[in-house]
This record gives sequence, C-alpha cells and structure tokens, in this order.
Amino acid sequence: MNEMSNRYPVTNRSKVRRLPKRGSAERAQVYAILDAHFLCHIGYVIDGQPYVTPTGYWRHGDRIYWHGSSASRMLRAQTAGIPVCLTVTLLDGLVLARSGFHHSINYRSVMAFGQAAKVEDLEEKTAALNAYVQRLYPGRNAEVRAIQPQELKATTLLGMTIEEATAKVRTGPPIDDEEDYALPVWAGVIPVRQIIGAPIADPRLAPATPLPSHLAPYADGEALDEVLSGTAKAAG
Amino acid sequence: MNEMSNRYPVTNRSKVRRLPKRGSAERAQVYAILDAHFLCHIGYVIDGQPYVTPTGYWRHGDRIYWHGSSASRMLRAQTAGIPVCLTVTLLDGLVLARSGFHHSINYRSVMAFGQAAKVEDLEEKTAALNAYVQRLYPGRNAEVRAIQPQELKATTLLGMTIEEATAKVRTGPPIDDEEDYALPVWAGVIPVRQIIGAPIADPRLAPATPLPSHLAPYADGEALDEVLSGTAKAAG
Repeated sequence: MNEMSNRYPVTNRSKVRRLPKRGSAERAQVYAILDAHFLCHIGYVIDGQPYVTPTGYWRHGDRIYWHGSSASRMLRAQTAGIPVCLTVTLLDGLVLARSGFHHSINYRSVMAFGQAAKVEDLEEKTAALNAYVQRLYPGRNAEVRAIQPQELKATTLLGMTIEEATAKVRTGPPIDDEEDYALPVWAGVIPVRQIIGAPIADPRLAPATPLPSHLAPYADGEALDEVLSGTAKAAG
Repeated sequence: MNEMSNRYPVTNRSKVRRLPKRGSAERAQVYAILDAHFLCHIGYVIDGQPYVTPTGYWRHGDRIYWHGSSASRMLRAQTAGIPVCLTVTLLDGLVLARSGFHHSINYRSVMAFGQAAKVEDLEEKTAALNAYVQRLYPGRNAEVRAIQPQELKATTLLGMTIEEATAKVRTGPPIDDEEDYALPVWAGVIPVRQIIGAPIADPRLAPATPLPSHLAPYADGEALDEVLSGTAKAAG
C-alpha cells in the first residue's frame, strides 16, 4: 500500500455493505478511532472455528501491536502469520426511535484487516512493549522497574500491518419514518461514555506515595476516549 | 446440553488456557455478564478470513439473538448455520503495576460458541424482535409504533444456542513481583465505567413530550451495566 495514500484500499473484504454512507476508508478517521481506545476484539480462525478475544493494542503508523503470555492459544495460533480482523468499537449512545425498527446505536468503529505475525527481534520487542506503556501513560516508563530478560521471553508480541481498514460511524438523532414523527412517543439519544473514576491506590502502596503527574489526564470524571486520544498524541 | 446443568461443557474450544484461575464455565456467571451489556463482537469466517462485527444482542435462556438488515454480509454468510464466537467485554479498570510487565486491566468477559442460524418463523421473529426492545426498555413496546410486515421482512434475525461459554474476570489491585513492592512507584487501579449521560431529545420531538417512565433507569450518571442488568431482570 502507498504509505502516502489518505485512504486504505477497499476490496470485497473491507467494503461496507450495510448502510455504506456510514463507512469510510480514510486513514485519518481510522487512526482517530484506533487512538481513542486501547481495547480491541481480535478475530482469528483455528480449524474453521472463529475466536474473538478482547485484547489491549497500540498503534504505530499502520502497524498495530498486541501481546500476551506465550501460553495463550490465540498467540500460539497466530505466530505463523495468520489473517486476523481487529475491531475497535466505541459506544456513544442509545438511539430511541418512534418505532422499534428504527432504534439504533451511536458508535464509532474500525475493522482492520491484516496478517498477524510474531515479533521476535529483541530490540524491536523491547521498544514496542515500552511503547505500549508510553502510549497509555506518557512518562511512566521512567518510573517503573524496567523490563527483565525473562519477562521479554515470556511475552509474545504480535504485530500486523493494516492492509485494509474501514471506519464506521453513526451520530445524531433517530431517523424515523416521516409519518411516525407525529406519534406522541419520546425519541432521542441516551448518551453513553466510558468515564474514569477516582484512582484506587494499591493496598500495599507505601503511604504518601504521590499520584504521578503522568496520571493527571486520568482525572475522575474524564472521558476515556478523550484521555486516550490525548496520550496517543503526547506519546508521539 | 443438560438444561439443568450449572456449568457449560468445557472442550478444547472453550478451555481457558491463559491464567485459568480467571476462567469459569458457570452458567450463572456467564448469564450475569451477558445481561450486563447489549453490544457484543461476533466472529465468523468466510473463505478462511475472520470478520469481527460489533452487534446488539439479547438473551433468552441459552439462546442469543441478534439482527440487522438482510443486506448485511455477516447475516448472509450466517444463514446456513455457521460456527460463530460471540464475545462480550466489560472494561472495569486500568491496573497500574510497579513494572510494565504486570500492568493489566480489570474486566468481565464472555466467549460464547454456537451455530448461528436464521430465524424464519414470523411469529417467533416478531416475538424475538419485540423482546429486544423489551430487554432494553421494559414497557416501551406498548408506546412505539408496532412492527410492520415489510419491516419484519427486511430484518434478518439470527439465533444461536450457546453450546459452550466461558466467563473470564479480573478484579482487584495489581499483582507485583514481591521485591518490586518496595519501589516508590504509584500502583493501583483507575476505574473505568460506561456511564449514562443526560437524554438528548430528538430535535423533531413535539414540545412537552415527557420522558417516559420506562426510561427512568437510564438516569444521568447511572452505570450502563447496572441499568442493563436491571432491565434484563425486569423484562423477565
């Protein structure tokens, strides 16, 4: 794929069929949604059986990384470089219409397709794992205990280059049948958002250990998608 | 499967390999997590390629339903009764440890396996679609305009009986290496929760249309998982 392209290629695999006006292959929109979360659902196939696993991920350009124990079935199956679909969904609201049929949800989602393969090079592996902490908590790597050789060995790191991706977004009020607008039924949107709560210190934390400045963005009441969009930008 | 069993069978497909102490095949725990959300990620396979689609779902006993336009690729592919993996994930918090390696997340998730097949019988289809509105907003069916024959026709309803399912849960503080507890690093949990916002009336709503009592559970500031657990119970 041309790295300078503003859009991902669209093939039979990634073409949005259901309500295509909601779909987009624009790279900027795909990045914006990917950078607004860190938890995805990865789909892969073993012997014809699909598996969908919730997993933390991080992005560097068109590369997406995720990791886990070497014991994980998913990662064992993916070491050979197998096709995956990585989906990220942000639920933004419940859409209530004047008929059951037109009820909907507001959301932002990305389906990204590629071949997942193990990252074996120790230098790249170390850098990528540190990048995950950096992406979530810019500055935290300087404070935590550094990764140990046996931890590096115990961690399987997977990477995939996005071959195709589609963003899908729905916003706004319900769209009812014209004749239904006259009905005396409440219609509108109930917003939903992932919100940060007050930090809970580890019971074994030494008294008077301050909350570090790199956690300032995660203030009580903040929206997770905005925090993560901000830390992604800060991490560079 | 024995309907009276408290646990789903565990086979190679559903066995929890990664940190098995976090896994459970107990039906009550699977139900509790499924009833705490309505948005899942469904994995299916076409020609060896996995697809993961975010979709609304609802549960009746061991049956899970979801729907969409007949135009949807996913539903076209699934009409024959194909293997799917339906995953529901609730993110509960970010877990910050004293080393990058032990960072984690708190969550509740279910992976449910079964064969998805089209529900064609019109009576069952009507009942199931009404059950979706009822599950989200108990009482709302009596107020909205009833489903029309052409809408029923345009909607593809999929159902699957849970053959196997596994719940996985992580709660609590980070688990650090013993020697790391002495480090002067803040550690703990940053809670995350899906929270309801203030309702946004449709701009075309007739003035003075009241917010109906069936939306009372969706009050500003409530947690979506608690609201949905409550409405699932109220819907019966």
